[in-house]
Amino acid sequence: MTMHSATLAINEAIQKRKANGEKLLHLGFGESGLPVPEFITQVLRISADQNSYGAVVGSEQARSAAAGWFSRRGLPTGAEQILLAPGSKALLFAALATVPGDLILPRPSWVSYAAQAALLNKAIIDVPIPDDAGGIPDPDLLEAAIIRSMSSGGNPGVLLLTVPDNPTGTMARPEAIERICGIAQKYELAIISDEIYAEVVHSGAAPSAASYLESRTIVTTGLSKSLALGGWRIGFARVPQNEWGHKILDDMIGVASEVWSSLAAPMQAVAAYVLNEPEEVKEHIQRSVRLHAIVANAVYEEFMAAGAACRKPVAGFYLYPDFEPLRDRLEAKGICSGSDLAGALLDQHGVGVLAGEAFGDNPSGLRARVATSLLYGTTTQERWEALKSDDPLSLPWIASALDHLRTALQELTS
Amino acid sequence: MTMHSATLAINEAIQKRKANGEKLLHLGFGESGLPVPEFITQVLRISADQNSYGAVVGSEQARSAAAGWFSRRGLPTGAEQILLAPGSKALLFAALATVPGDLILPRPSWVSYAAQAALLNKAIIDVPIPDDAGGIPDPDLLEAAIIRSMSSGGNPGVLLLTVPDNPTGTMARPEAIERICGIAQKYELAIISDEIYAEVVHSGAAPSAASYLESRTIVTTGLSKSLALGGWRIGFARVPQNEWGHKILDDMIGVASEVWSSLAAPMQAVAAYVLNEPEEVKEHIQRSVRLHAIVANAVYEEFMAAGAACRKPVAGFYLYPDFEPLRDRLEAKGICSGSDLAGALLDQHGVGVLAGEAFGDNPSGLRARVATSLLYGTTTQERWEALKSDDPLSLPWIASALDHLRTALQELTS
Repeated sequence: MTMHSATLAINEAIQKRKANGEKLLHLGFGESGLPVPEFITQVLRISADQNSYGAVVGSEQARSAAAGWFSRRGLPTGAEQILLAPGSKALLFAALATVPGDLILPRPSWVSYAAQAALLNKAIIDVPIPDDAGGIPDPDLLEAAIIRSMSSGGNPGVLLLTVPDNPTGTMARPEAIERICGIAQKYELAIISDEIYAEVVHSGAAPSAASYLESRTIVTTGLSKSLALGGWRIGFARVPQNEWGHKILDDMIGVASEVWSSLAAPMQAVAAYVLNEPEEVKEHIQRSVRLHAIVANAVYEEFMAAGAACRKPVAGFYLYPDFEPLRDRLEAKGICSGSDLAGALLDQHGVGVLAGEAFGDNPSGLRARVATSLLYGTTTQERWEALKSDDPLSLPWIASALDHLRTALQELTS
Repeated sequence: MTMHSATLAINEAIQKRKANGEKLLHLGFGESGLPVPEFITQVLRISADQNSYGAVVGSEQARSAAAGWFSRRGLPTGAEQILLAPGSKALLFAALATVPGDLILPRPSWVSYAAQAALLNKAIIDVPIPDDAGGIPDPDLLEAAIIRSMSSGGNPGVLLLTVPDNPTGTMARPEAIERICGIAQKYELAIISDEIYAEVVHSGAAPSAASYLESRTIVTTGLSKSLALGGWRIGFARVPQNEWGHKILDDMIGVASEVWSSLAAPMQAVAAYVLNEPEEVKEHIQRSVRLHAIVANAVYEEFMAAGAACRKPVAGFYLYPDFEPLRDRLEAKGICSGSDLAGALLDQHGVGVLAGEAFGDNPSGLRARVATSLLYGTTTQERWEALKSDDPLSLPWIASALDHLRTALQELTS
């Protein structure tokens, strides 16, 4: 295999071009783009003498804190239902390696699901997402795909949901998730629900798939998005409190113990602290979400003004604009696909985005994922100012980035 | 699959029994058993504000330091040949996922190689190790196994070596490694050489398989053993400086980017510092190796005195005693296999070891792996005293552990 996560690849490519002095607007990478507060770095510092191998499954303190975290979100959870790992990506891999059967994958969806399935030789059943939100499949198309697969000798076993969604920055409605979970139950599917953006909902709370089909749902999440700790690699998962859940956890621990052993011990201490949700952590997350919402919506307005179609962002720091309404104009410039679009934006207008094709979308669609979270600044100081500002859009570096984007979109679509 | 790394499993089981107040001698787990020096925790502390996703392959500083580390060991290396990851186990997995063909595995060998191959659906070709040292196969048996496999439709592709070796605590002679590398070259095999114990050689330096077949050898290693940083999960790998090596590295980066993303950013800073080998780090490693050698040899003497056969330890902190000379006596007590032996030692004599079967050895062999590195003490203070002592065997807790072992072996074999 010669894959390399498309999101990580564009990040590295753009970082290199920026280092060479190019003026680029980096909208290609889903990093939260915020500094880490002192009260969190302090926990890592005081845990720096913890050098022993810990339990594969995680420390008692971290598991117990994660259990409380889920319980406070309406999912009563015991510490024995929790597994920690170096990132939620690793947990998704362990879950996919563990749950038998083919993977039912809504498209477009995050780049690594399909790549992990390929690594595990797991067959994929594609189902398109519905028009109103990303992250979950269209229920009718889902049921049709299951029946079609079974009748042609397939073995649909596990359904992957992303709630809230990346790449679209939207969130499925509870009724829609409930209906999907009903279909999963009917066909005895397992659900892996990637809920890493659940703490980054712009207003209100995110529904969990485990609220609707607790008995068959594995939830994965982590601290990379809500607390901008992508570089610390802290993920955790919850399995159901039943025989199936115990078996799944045992098997996931098996994969963990043979592939990465455990989350680093000092990072377990950080997880325990954060997931106990002291006031300062909650406030910092709220402030971060506010910034994500303001900037994502401002960028959304720019794409709408340029004439693209786009779902309004309600979670995370992403947009998924569709330039189909402007196809004639773009085709006249030789832009006929999502990757043409991303290529033109990067090479002619200095704006880095990721073509929808990277997310399994139709390559001919004029769609791209736009990450808005690297606009907050390029230095730690700028990022702190953005976080603290009551009007972040008026900060010169954010205003100038939006100007750059506006000019780019005007030129692209003129 | 329902595997769980046998070494990690016995560690967790024994920790639980000790927590319940049982007096147990823990010789089951390959943890270096030493505290982390202040000059290393300090690097983690000052890097605690690094929260961004880094490059999958590792930071420039860490890669460059690792390249220098290999170069100073007689293998000229550029930073572009290096990949860092959360542990060398993850790198072994990525290498096995990447190199095509069946895995040729000397037995007995470390528990996770076969488990990783199973996870990747990779066929295994077993080859026994020779009598004089572990970690590399007997050359004649290796060639016979390759020919037999090829003639029966197999596809031998990659040979795994462990230099120095776990579970035996021995080290293959350079001439023996050279001969094995010649066979690998003849049959166009790749070599994955697990050299994580190379810094824990009791006297002199370890040979690297890459010195004999540089063009086809992937070396994996890490800081868990030499610096007792198992809980920090820092591993690094070196690929050859040729087209094949570039391709392998690209593919390993692909696996890394889809399964764990990267080594945590603050840990990359630790790797950069340590691998530049400042004087205090070199001295600490030397002092640690001295303690490992003294205690491993003292434990070796106990097994020899009890009448077991055992190779003298020359690296790491392991012994692999064979109670075959005492089979009659043990069988009279109902001990007929390695797991009977490990069971009796744990349940009747309070000594935890791991049966040879866990390492792929013949289950009926009366062999077990004995890890000696958890004898240094149970508190950080005791461990520091052991490190600093000129005569660690005279420290009360080490002397008492050796007494416990002596009594256990006397009772077992009486």
